[in-house]
Amino acid sequence: MTSDLQLSPTPRSTVVRGKKRAVEDRQVLYDILDAGLVCHLAVEVDGAPFLIPTAYGRDGNRIFLHGSTGSRSIRSMLEGKQVCVAVTLVDGVVYSRSVFHHSMNYRSAIIHGTAKIAEDTQHALRTIVEHVTPGSWDYAREPSKKELAQTAALEIDLTEASVKVREGGPGEEPSDLEANLVWAGHMPLITSWGAPVPHETDKAIPPHVSARGR
Amino acid sequence: MTSDLQLSPTPRSTVVRGKKRAVEDRQVLYDILDAGLVCHLAVEVDGAPFLIPTAYGRDGNRIFLHGSTGSRSIRSMLEGKQVCVAVTLVDGVVYSRSVFHHSMNYRSAIIHGTAKIAEDTQHALRTIVEHVTPGSWDYAREPSKKELAQTAALEIDLTEASVKVREGGPGEEPSDLEANLVWAGHMPLITSWGAPVPHETDKAIPPHVSARGR
Repeated sequence: MTSDLQLSPTPRSTVVRGKKRAVEDRQVLYDILDAGLVCHLAVEVDGAPFLIPTAYGRDGNRIFLHGSTGSRSIRSMLEGKQVCVAVTLVDGVVYSRSVFHHSMNYRSAIIHGTAKIAEDTQHALRTIVEHVTPGSWDYAREPSKKELAQTAALEIDLTEASVKVREGGPGEEPSDLEANLVWAGHMPLITSWGAPVPHETDKAIPPHVSARGR
Repeated sequence: MTSDLQLSPTPRSTVVRGKKRAVEDRQVLYDILDAGLVCHLAVEVDGAPFLIPTAYGRDGNRIFLHGSTGSRSIRSMLEGKQVCVAVTLVDGVVYSRSVFHHSMNYRSAIIHGTAKIAEDTQHALRTIVEHVTPGSWDYAREPSKKELAQTAALEIDLTEASVKVREGGPGEEPSDLEANLVWAGHMPLITSWGAPVPHETDKAIPPHVSARGR
């Protein structure tokens, strides 16, 4: 398939192992990023890899991350540096007839890029907040000038990315299928929202919270 | 607290941001690792950070990972290299009265170490399989010599690690609490197992599968 939706793999974003799980469709990348809540960002610090799990939000073909302006994890640590970002959704585990073919079902997105400071911090924050807690930006108090000044937002382009998806039951050795000695299958892992827990408030739960996950 | 259970932070494993969320208890590290299914492993490849989401298993104060002996992600890519490993469990989202104090509830473990080839591949694989699919090692067909030869297992020591945990409702500015303009609270994210899905089998679902998650 060749289209604007196709991922454009470079050597490092080309899936070498598990080619049959590689997906070359930019919409699948976007769907995975939109379904996740936390990404893992890798960057080199003092000659060693360093990992930061953090919230993010997608806006078109880029994602935004944020942190405190005082944090070692933003600006000084990340600005202009090469980064790798992963969003992984675990959808279940796979029971094969052989130990060797046990597996997991998942949707995985890996992005290679360079972190740059987002020009519009407020837009970046809005994108992140609306990703993690949709409806909150217009409902809660907006950031003050002081709060905005305490926040740095980063932007990472999604052009160089790879996607892998695994679903369904196990692959098996033909001899294991024929022998038919044991049960095999898969078990879905399901993520759902629990009931909202109020915090020192007499207000009714607003629709953007109560409607979540329905 | 000083005990064998205490984490021993080096400068890079010392939590700088969000100190109030830092936990210095080795058992909490183990609990997070035991509760997760997938870790993210970061390593430098060709001068840039590279991320691998992968299954793992814990055995005492080390974790094992595995891959194909042919993969660029194992041996050539990892043996003897500095790595960073993260396991992140997202427990919910936090709605504050201000956009600025919106947050997430989570349990996060970050490990800094050096990847070395596990001496006993079979023990490492058993640890990983029993972590992801408890009971499967003794139930399914054991790896053949050929299958074992196709597999490389890595070991990473857990000594240098940091743990952060956030739970409960939002922190708030006193002025936002006093103004009492909007609802605030948190919403748990719940992970549960769905019913097992059989794969081309007439066998009954074995207890180690059917009992999972109860």
